[in-house]
Amino acid sequence: MSLDNPAAKPLDRLAHALGGDMERVAALIRERMQSDAAPRIPAVTAHLIEAGGKRLRPMLVLAAARLLGAEGAALQKAVQLGAVVEFIHTATLLHDDVVDESRQRRGRPTANLLWDNQSSVLVGDYLFARSFQIMVEVGSLRVLDLLSAASATIAEGEVLQLAAARDLGTTEATYLRIARGKTAALFAAATQAGAVVAGADAAREEALRRYGDALGIAFQIADDLLDIEGDAGIGKNRGDDLREGKMTLPVIRALAAADEEERLFWRRVLGRGELADGDVAQARALMERHGALASTRAEALAWAGRAKAALAALPDHPLRRILTDLADFVVTRTA
Amino acid sequence: MSLDNPAAKPLDRLAHALGGDMERVAALIRERMQSDAAPRIPAVTAHLIEAGGKRLRPMLVLAAARLLGAEGAALQKAVQLGAVVEFIHTATLLHDDVVDESRQRRGRPTANLLWDNQSSVLVGDYLFARSFQIMVEVGSLRVLDLLSAASATIAEGEVLQLAAARDLGTTEATYLRIARGKTAALFAAATQAGAVVAGADAAREEALRRYGDALGIAFQIADDLLDIEGDAGIGKNRGDDLREGKMTLPVIRALAAADEEERLFWRRVLGRGELADGDVAQARALMERHGALASTRAEALAWAGRAKAALAALPDHPLRRILTDLADFVVTRTA
Repeated sequence: MSLDNPAAKPLDRLAHALGGDMERVAALIRERMQSDAAPRIPAVTAHLIEAGGKRLRPMLVLAAARLLGAEGAALQKAVQLGAVVEFIHTATLLHDDVVDESRQRRGRPTANLLWDNQSSVLVGDYLFARSFQIMVEVGSLRVLDLLSAASATIAEGEVLQLAAARDLGTTEATYLRIARGKTAALFAAATQAGAVVAGADAAREEALRRYGDALGIAFQIADDLLDIEGDAGIGKNRGDDLREGKMTLPVIRALAAADEEERLFWRRVLGRGELADGDVAQARALMERHGALASTRAEALAWAGRAKAALAALPDHPLRRILTDLADFVVTRTA
Repeated sequence: MSLDNPAAKPLDRLAHALGGDMERVAALIRERMQSDAAPRIPAVTAHLIEAGGKRLRPMLVLAAARLLGAEGAALQKAVQLGAVVEFIHTATLLHDDVVDESRQRRGRPTANLLWDNQSSVLVGDYLFARSFQIMVEVGSLRVLDLLSAASATIAEGEVLQLAAARDLGTTEATYLRIARGKTAALFAAATQAGAVVAGADAAREEALRRYGDALGIAFQIADDLLDIEGDAGIGKNRGDDLREGKMTLPVIRALAAADEEERLFWRRVLGRGELADGDVAQARALMERHGALASTRAEALAWAGRAKAALAALPDHPLRRILTDLADFVVTRTA
């Protein structure tokens, strides 16, 4: 199927539409993850970065920049910022896997399992510092401001998630704050930074920021659903969120409708973390009984709708159509 | 004793000479460590930051800036950068305590013990991001360049230390690279950044960078000695470095002179980490037998001498005399 064909997968169409940009991002990533002093740094980084992530965040920077006509020096800055957001994302994955004590990521053993927690913490720190070095080369204080604020919001969201874990009183407002932090902040910073280097006016920059924010929230809600409904082949194990006591949206909604007996189940499984065989299936059954999966899916679709609506302020462009389809795709993806 | 008296402790004289600067740094730290979303962030940060650290790094920024005549807006930038380096330092301490599985820091239980490793990793990330936000407010790409490079060097040094742990073949060149990374990089960035915001010429900026670098290495070598010779009251336990398999300078020098039987001892204690009662005392005895403690002390003094020599390029100023005495102090300190 041709990659210009609207029936092709949006991620493939996006990569195709960006031409050689993503190869330039990949080359920069390979160059900047090196360390003469400490060969363990590129080893750990390569393990994760070459495991075939979607590279969605760098594609968002480049799509935003190209949609607004970036070329030459502006496009080069977008390529650099593509490497920046992938480094920040990789740093957070390394730290998340330590925090969650994860054993599998992208279908491979995690770095904390293959090396140790120490290496994951320190290599994450290195990549984070490297990302700021590349931002300094881009030379825009505006972009540094966006991305340092996004980095603080990411860490804040993660701490909030940690504090809310196993807390059955977690509200949807707190959920949204966590989702914005751990996922949407970097999506929004990526699309907004792409707009900034393209020299966008305030309205278009804000439209792209809102697109990234809504896309990120839709993506995160879909991720919650995958933990319950996903195939075994998605690279993480079904029920991981449940096991880690994460207060995902379908859990919060199932809890809101739970009777006393169901609350005992949730208190044991989520509150105390005592998971027995069959509990993941039982959690799913309770969610289905109260329509929590359907309403969560509707919520994801609503955020995808907001993402698409934000694009209306942008010029007509093949990339705008792909970004529209991408919003639909992130909520229907199965991996 | 008057704080203008040269016999008073250099750290106290430094704090005194900086007038209200350090209170302004402390106020900014308190303001910027807040997080509405996640109250655990200021709780963890305050636990560490209010435990009475020496605040040496912010004092270095301010001493460098004031020595070169900074006042008004330039001094305000130095105050902001004081908070920046303390945030970076605190972030690395939080991560180090996870990496080293430490239980005590500054005489108190570590954050990873009081909360958990997860909080220490994520709050460290938050403080690191916050430090970049404050740097953006300072608005100097030059300073952002210095401090992002220093941050990468710190992480690199820590990874190198991790890879070299329990490796009896570790050379003095590797030791120096680790010490530069984990300690001297931030000292050097602090003094250099102070010079930059004061508008120093290239020669003075370089002199202050070299002072910070040499002071940091002297400080780290003295720290190695404290692990062997220090009092119990220094806030960490004697022999911690040995237990963690760190290849400190006195260890490397004792190993270089070891006979076959002594090598068996080092291989067991450091290489395999099998520490028995009396082994710390035995390690010290072996170091003394080969003059490793005396030669390490001489090495620390040599770096303190280099730090003092670097100050010759700077104008005569009361702060210059205090920085001179500080170089002597860091190698003779007992805590």
